[in-house]
Amino acid sequence: MTARGETRGRLLRTAAELFQRQGYHGTGLNQVLADSRAPKGSLYFHFPGGKEELAAEAVTLSGRELGEVFAGLMEAAPDARTALATVGEHFARSLEDSAFQKGCPVATVALEAAAESEPIRAACDAVYAAWQSVFATALRGWGVREERADSFADTVLSSLQGAVLLARIRRDVSVIHRTARDLGDLIDGRSPSPV
Amino acid sequence: MTARGETRGRLLRTAAELFQRQGYHGTGLNQVLADSRAPKGSLYFHFPGGKEELAAEAVTLSGRELGEVFAGLMEAAPDARTALATVGEHFARSLEDSAFQKGCPVATVALEAAAESEPIRAACDAVYAAWQSVFATALRGWGVREERADSFADTVLSSLQGAVLLARIRRDVSVIHRTARDLGDLIDGRSPSPV
Repeated sequence: MTARGETRGRLLRTAAELFQRQGYHGTGLNQVLADSRAPKGSLYFHFPGGKEELAAEAVTLSGRELGEVFAGLMEAAPDARTALATVGEHFARSLEDSAFQKGCPVATVALEAAAESEPIRAACDAVYAAWQSVFATALRGWGVREERADSFADTVLSSLQGAVLLARIRRDVSVIHRTARDLGDLIDGRSPSPV
Repeated sequence: MTARGETRGRLLRTAAELFQRQGYHGTGLNQVLADSRAPKGSLYFHFPGGKEELAAEAVTLSGRELGEVFAGLMEAAPDARTALATVGEHFARSLEDSAFQKGCPVATVALEAAAESEPIRAACDAVYAAWQSVFATALRGWGVREERADSFADTVLSSLQGAVLLARIRRDVSVIHRTARDLGDLIDGRSPSPV
């Protein structure tokens, strides 16, 4: 990679990390520059659209990487129940290893900026669509009916996003594991009667 | 209410509305003052802890109000499936009526500020605990086993939070309705085999 490409990559990775921990408005461009040890003019050189463009690209990068992790976990798991448990485990470890600072790399920016920035909303939307597609494809592979796979994949995505949010606020990951187990029950079609 | 009490209430309500739409960092105290038509000194007079105290109280207020809505919907519904559908409907209407600006009044501030402010994290935590308790109590009332009610209530809370987030990003509330229906299946213990 050229020095120029390296600087761009470093800016993007630093921004992605800061946005994940602090959110969009809580992260200043000066901090991105300082933490990436990048020259002052480099940010607008590489991201002429400024913070908005940087955030959209950072969400896209983090989203693609996490999507690849999901795909790998889905491929390695023998069934939906195991796959959901390992995805939950991935989020739980990320939270615990970062003292509950690193939850979902998309959710915070999504909630903050979706109403004010169409490029950021569109980037978050594309990431969620890609994740949903990874889950839906895996569910079909495990024999879930075609017409149910997309809907279940949405429920999986919703539940995990919410559980990671709750775990971060509670500073306790157990909600992630319980939610993943309940999703496994739902998808297995062997939900134990709770009554 | 005294004029002083009215000013405090107006500041709080305005702040709650702005935090819900724009998040914590995206909302400036000057905007809170201007939108509440409150005198400049009044904010620090009523909230000596400044923005942090205002946000913690705003989340508490919004959380209590929405918790009362949840409790009312639970009480009016004949079963978990109906109750979850109406809670989903409530969130969907709030999003649609606000051009997708008003999702959950807690989630954005929670994700942004939980890592940096212990008072805000604690306020969000207390709201989520109260909501979880409303759901758990209702589930017990519908005959869900004692040892499953708390866990299901957590899954309900997670799934709805995530679905509201996704709906806001997609500008499409259908994910909320589908997720509520899947939760109904799970809790009814009559999850249709998807295979």
